[in-house]
Amino acid sequence: MMSNSAGPLALSSSSAQPEPTPALEELYAGFEEQSLVPLWTEIGDLMPESPRPAARAHRWEWARLLELARTSGDVVPIGRGGERRAIALSNPGLGGAPFATPTLWAAIQYLNPGEDAPVHRHTQHAFRFVVEGEGVWTVVDDDPVAMRRGDLLLTAGWRFHGHHNSSDRPMAWLDGLDIPFSHYVGTTFFEFGPAEVSTREAPARSRSELLWGHAGLRPAAATATADASGSSLAAYRWEHTDAALTDQLSLEDGGHPGTLEPGHAAVRFVDPQTGGDVLPTIRAEMHRVRAGVSTSARREVGSSVWQVFQGVGEVRVGDRAWVVSHGDLVVVPSWHHWQVVADTELDLFRFSDAPVMEAVQAWRSEVGGLVP
Amino acid sequence: MMSNSAGPLALSSSSAQPEPTPALEELYAGFEEQSLVPLWTEIGDLMPESPRPAARAHRWEWARLLELARTSGDVVPIGRGGERRAIALSNPGLGGAPFATPTLWAAIQYLNPGEDAPVHRHTQHAFRFVVEGEGVWTVVDDDPVAMRRGDLLLTAGWRFHGHHNSSDRPMAWLDGLDIPFSHYVGTTFFEFGPAEVSTREAPARSRSELLWGHAGLRPAAATATADASGSSLAAYRWEHTDAALTDQLSLEDGGHPGTLEPGHAAVRFVDPQTGGDVLPTIRAEMHRVRAGVSTSARREVGSSVWQVFQGVGEVRVGDRAWVVSHGDLVVVPSWHHWQVVADTELDLFRFSDAPVMEAVQAWRSEVGGLVP
Amino acid sequence: MMSNSAGPLALSSSSAQPEPTPALEELYAGFEEQSLVPLWTEIGDLMPESPRPAARAHRWEWARLLELARTSGDVVPIGRGGERRAIALSNPGLGGAPFATPTLWAAIQYLNPGEDAPVHRHTQHAFRFVVEGEGVWTVVDDDPVAMRRGDLLLTAGWRFHGHHNSSDRPMAWLDGLDIPFSHYVGTTFFEFGPAEVSTREAPARSRSELLWGHAGLRPAAATATADASGSSLAAYRWEHTDAALTDQLSLEDGGHPGTLEPGHAAVRFVDPQTGGDVLPTIRAEMHRVRAGVSTSARREVGSSVWQVFQGVGEVRVGDRAWVVSHGDLVVVPSWHHWQVVADTELDLFRFSDAPVMEAVQAWRSEVGGLVP
Amino acid sequence: MMSNSAGPLALSSSSAQPEPTPALEELYAGFEEQSLVPLWTEIGDLMPESPRPAARAHRWEWARLLELARTSGDVVPIGRGGERRAIALSNPGLGGAPFATPTLWAAIQYLNPGEDAPVHRHTQHAFRFVVEGEGVWTVVDDDPVAMRRGDLLLTAGWRFHGHHNSSDRPMAWLDGLDIPFSHYVGTTFFEFGPAEVSTREAPARSRSELLWGHAGLRPAAATATADASGSSLAAYRWEHTDAALTDQLSLEDGGHPGTLEPGHAAVRFVDPQTGGDVLPTIRAEMHRVRAGVSTSARREVGSSVWQVFQGVGEVRVGDRAWVVSHGDLVVVPSWHHWQVVADTELDLFRFSDAPVMEAVQAWRSEVGGLVP
Repeated sequence: MMSNSAGPLALSSSSAQPEPTPALEELYAGFEEQSLVPLWTEIGDLMPESPRPAARAHRWEWARLLELARTSGDVVPIGRGGERRAIALSNPGLGGAPFATPTLWAAIQYLNPGEDAPVHRHTQHAFRFVVEGEGVWTVVDDDPVAMRRGDLLLTAGWRFHGHHNSSDRPMAWLDGLDIPFSHYVGTTFFEFGPAEVSTREAPARSRSELLWGHAGLRPAAATATADASGSSLAAYRWEHTDAALTDQLSLEDGGHPGTLEPGHAAVRFVDPQTGGDVLPTIRAEMHRVRAGVSTSARREVGSSVWQVFQGVGEVRVGDRAWVVSHGDLVVVPSWHHWQVVADTELDLFRFSDAPVMEAVQAWRSEVGGLVP
Repeated sequence: MMSNSAGPLALSSSSAQPEPTPALEELYAGFEEQSLVPLWTEIGDLMPESPRPAARAHRWEWARLLELARTSGDVVPIGRGGERRAIALSNPGLGGAPFATPTLWAAIQYLNPGEDAPVHRHTQHAFRFVVEGEGVWTVVDDDPVAMRRGDLLLTAGWRFHGHHNSSDRPMAWLDGLDIPFSHYVGTTFFEFGPAEVSTREAPARSRSELLWGHAGLRPAAATATADASGSSLAAYRWEHTDAALTDQLSLEDGGHPGTLEPGHAAVRFVDPQTGGDVLPTIRAEMHRVRAGVSTSARREVGSSVWQVFQGVGEVRVGDRAWVVSHGDLVVVPSWHHWQVVADTELDLFRFSDAPVMEAVQAWRSEVGGLVP
Repeated sequence: MMSNSAGPLALSSSSAQPEPTPALEELYAGFEEQSLVPLWTEIGDLMPESPRPAARAHRWEWARLLELARTSGDVVPIGRGGERRAIALSNPGLGGAPFATPTLWAAIQYLNPGEDAPVHRHTQHAFRFVVEGEGVWTVVDDDPVAMRRGDLLLTAGWRFHGHHNSSDRPMAWLDGLDIPFSHYVGTTFFEFGPAEVSTREAPARSRSELLWGHAGLRPAAATATADASGSSLAAYRWEHTDAALTDQLSLEDGGHPGTLEPGHAAVRFVDPQTGGDVLPTIRAEMHRVRAGVSTSARREVGSSVWQVFQGVGEVRVGDRAWVVSHGDLVVVPSWHHWQVVADTELDLFRFSDAPVMEAVQAWRSEVGGLVP
Repeated sequence: MMSNSAGPLALSSSSAQPEPTPALEELYAGFEEQSLVPLWTEIGDLMPESPRPAARAHRWEWARLLELARTSGDVVPIGRGGERRAIALSNPGLGGAPFATPTLWAAIQYLNPGEDAPVHRHTQHAFRFVVEGEGVWTVVDDDPVAMRRGDLLLTAGWRFHGHHNSSDRPMAWLDGLDIPFSHYVGTTFFEFGPAEVSTREAPARSRSELLWGHAGLRPAAATATADASGSSLAAYRWEHTDAALTDQLSLEDGGHPGTLEPGHAAVRFVDPQTGGDVLPTIRAEMHRVRAGVSTSARREVGSSVWQVFQGVGEVRVGDRAWVVSHGDLVVVPSWHHWQVVADTELDLFRFSDAPVMEAVQAWRSEVGGLVP
């Protein structure tokens, strides 16, 4: 379907350009003076046969990230103005911007014992994924949400939120946001809240979990229409995610459908109120690959970031490949093949801009094909 | 909004009729001959100021139902042709039809030890609610679903299903279907399956629960679009329903929103894939009213059936009132006020035709108002 | 898919009944005393292999209807109480009720020169289709809507409306409503308005047409969300319907897709704001069959009413067939085959309960098959 | 709602930075080595209180554009490789890229008599708006669509399309696409078709107009579900747009609602099949402002491009203002106020990325407020 029968022919920038003449030069000068650019010199870059993103496949090692985050914890104070001690992945193809991909922000955030990350809100949508540790509560619109290993915690756009570390140990986690996307299209609003979170309560379950954390059970008091700006549930606990993956593999053991492909279980985190993605701009998933299994090569329109939660294996993206383990992060640019090879049982968290791609009818995907 | 400024004026059938003359008589004879009926003689019945359903508020005592079901278990064999040993509530206002309301079927079904209810499928949507007992498995499209006290089990339309009692005791439960509605509008298809269910496996959890029973976690392998003809989850277990109600009341104890009104917790059973109702024509809910609490009087367009799950109290419908306890069933016709007064903590299951009312934009409801 | 492999086997009412014994008789007496009915005696009627509606295929001749309507115009006054001089089709299978089908009301309404049909509103959804004549304005929420030959005029639920005949000739037209459906499920509210319409203005186009009658052009001032309770456009004019049918046939002449089948053009009337049906409970269509063409036999779940607008031909429904011409009405019960044979070019208006069938996921249809 | 109580406080980049020390320098060097960037140095740019787009308000004069396009017509050949003789607006704030805004492409395209723009397809969504002239047919998936003054013509993504000029005069028009957006997020696919269009037929109406160009009339043969990737209607003719605007102003003259505000009529071009925007990523509108009227100042999240169709007036954007007339183009960056002051009756075409903003729940707008 994507095949191009035109064969050797190529879109401009190159050979198909008009002959350089004084008249052409004068024309181009006129363009420049009038803030104009012709299509025919740019079409090769703007209209490739298939996506040719500037972003590159890349891997970051968690150990190195964590080390730098710890140093930041010593050197960089936290408070109003800087707001967060967060260090972002900067894709080598994106000119030094703090963007993991053109649409996604991924950062390690670090909070020392007793510290507070001050309260603010912004239209950017955010989540936290906890690869290790516990002891921090993120307080979202006054609802304290415990952060524990393996949990996915949401802060949908325009909710006031701050964090406090109630424990006696520092804690680091992954922040994911749509900062690059909203920065590019110009949708960002921001507002300060108090310097400290409104409550030091530290319950095991947030109020959103008490209300929405029961499969297939909607509070009758909920208004009829869902707020499409983010999930009703603020916390997705590891014990439930783990159980869902385990159940998928047990279905497979019984000969029943359920896994994504043999040896490869996966769940998408969704809003229990609608079944839709947890955030309007971000899809989040957890994958489990059995030891010894190689997943099919797949590619999708749009970009994603993976983080290894537990286990050891190899992640291949386009023509790159890395041995990965606990906490390592890998970026997959648009339309790049990806494949996971599990040495041990391998659990991987993934987030992507798929909801944006789907919302604008740009979604395409392929299973199979070659990965070098 | 519903007030009628016209005061004493009333719609026809009555005073506003034309004078009886020979010409009118001849006209009416012409109507009859041509299969015609004038609006002006019928408008009072067809266009009341507010719904005036033929169905009546009524209560059935579980003890009497169960007794008759047991006798049926002795006297009436089960098998192909009769298909099910089910005894339906027949609303006293509906002329002897086996209809609890114009849209809803409610029956007690009874299965002796070792018996099979043969496999068939039909376009009518069905559920079972288990007020007591266990030991039967309903096998839905080859997926064996255990039936235990407090559980809601679904059989959405056009799924093959049969039941078998693997235990050494008889079991009775509530069947709810949209038989009256589909009979009236003419949408019923039916097909026989095998005389016995395809599997005697008796797992604690159905395959649908392994796949869909995790709050906010959608199998990544699920096709993008939901099948709107019924929930992806076949079983809603009592321990989860109970926990959700308990959590709502604990939110209330903490001063937070969550319950429907003070002392009155309620959940709607929904499809985890969409957040919508479990069946296209039936809404199901569980309510818990604290001991000593009287709920507000409410009324809705459309009809519903309540079954007491546990506790003792009073249910008021329109100008009727009954003391109710374990298993008792009460029918609420369209636009009739209902109110629950709990002597002990009172758990009530309810199902209604609300999805139909909403689908055709006919939904209206009121909270408050007088109940005699 | 609908085939039933069970062959000779039949669902109960009949042979599969338990042996009549004193114990069974006593049981049945207990059922009756407790307002209960067993499934096994009723299943044959309630769960047929395919829909077996009580409503029958039937035809009404317009000439006879019109004659009786004229006599009513002489004999029956119009005004508050009786509200409308409307005479309804009464399906011979529905026990004398003024129902064309279980869900649809179809009536001829008649208004003498200078008469007013008083203002009221009701939750039932209504339309008028004008098979001949003009001179009446229906005033819907103060917007005067001219009624002319070939037009479809809407009065969605809960809009105040009245009619006045500004001309010096009587006028008759077809009223279509969902009265039987809303009566059955109990959703009817009614309220009186003034005895006369609020305006005697008689513009050629209603305000709704000025705002919404431009294909693909939505008023920017319209609120973002459509009111799903009925179309934004109150009038569908014959000249546009005619042009759309003509254009479909000209596409066919050019070898391009567009018609429903060769020689059979058809349009569905839709809300320009959503593309959905004009009323939540009623679908309306206009069909044009070329002279000499026989349409395929088709059947659908749900019922419909046809009215010949112009031309001569034969309409077949189930095992019935009638020669039809201008104004004749034919009822098609659920799952009955229908087929049109055009002697001259034949234009037919049709309305059905298809939106209800689709809303509850009960829609099925078949093209082809035998019509006797 | 957008007010910021924090007053003098400002987000980083500035004062709130940590003290420069050797340890900090070493940390920053570690970040750079590991492809990392801290949030605290960038937050001021990434999280402004309200959108601070890089794109600037700007105006292009049609006369100058047309002159350069004519010269291009002499100097630059058209054909395979360059594909189109299109000259794009390059926003002065976007570093020389051929982007009118971060999401929108706007170009003048020019075709000499007898020329062909070769057939291709791409996932980018496109439209043409004809500010003057006629004589070109755009052939979209083999359907020839005449281009005439005032018309909006669509080429939704992945439809093969080419243009041919059948007349003896050159023709220029406005091309609008989502090239910058799809380039940024990486969704672009492209495929060559034949060097010439498949048909030289030049009908007055396209086949899509024959099928879909009738308000409120859906072809019964259309499949149930709309293709969300673009409107079913390929051409929106000026005579209809003009009539709709005229009708809105006549409603206003009669004292009825309809216009956007006094003296300001506006329509949104929509898919007749769904009522939604014509393209998944682009909203198109036509505005008419009465002579002497100043519109309210408005601002929206997301960017737009205006083109004057006829009349003379002033367009104000943020702190800029330009006298504009026939064909002039103005860009409005995100959250910039815009206001139109009409000297004569003024018709303006507008397109924007509003569907993207709505799809990701980022839409905000304000009416009123100050424009300098």
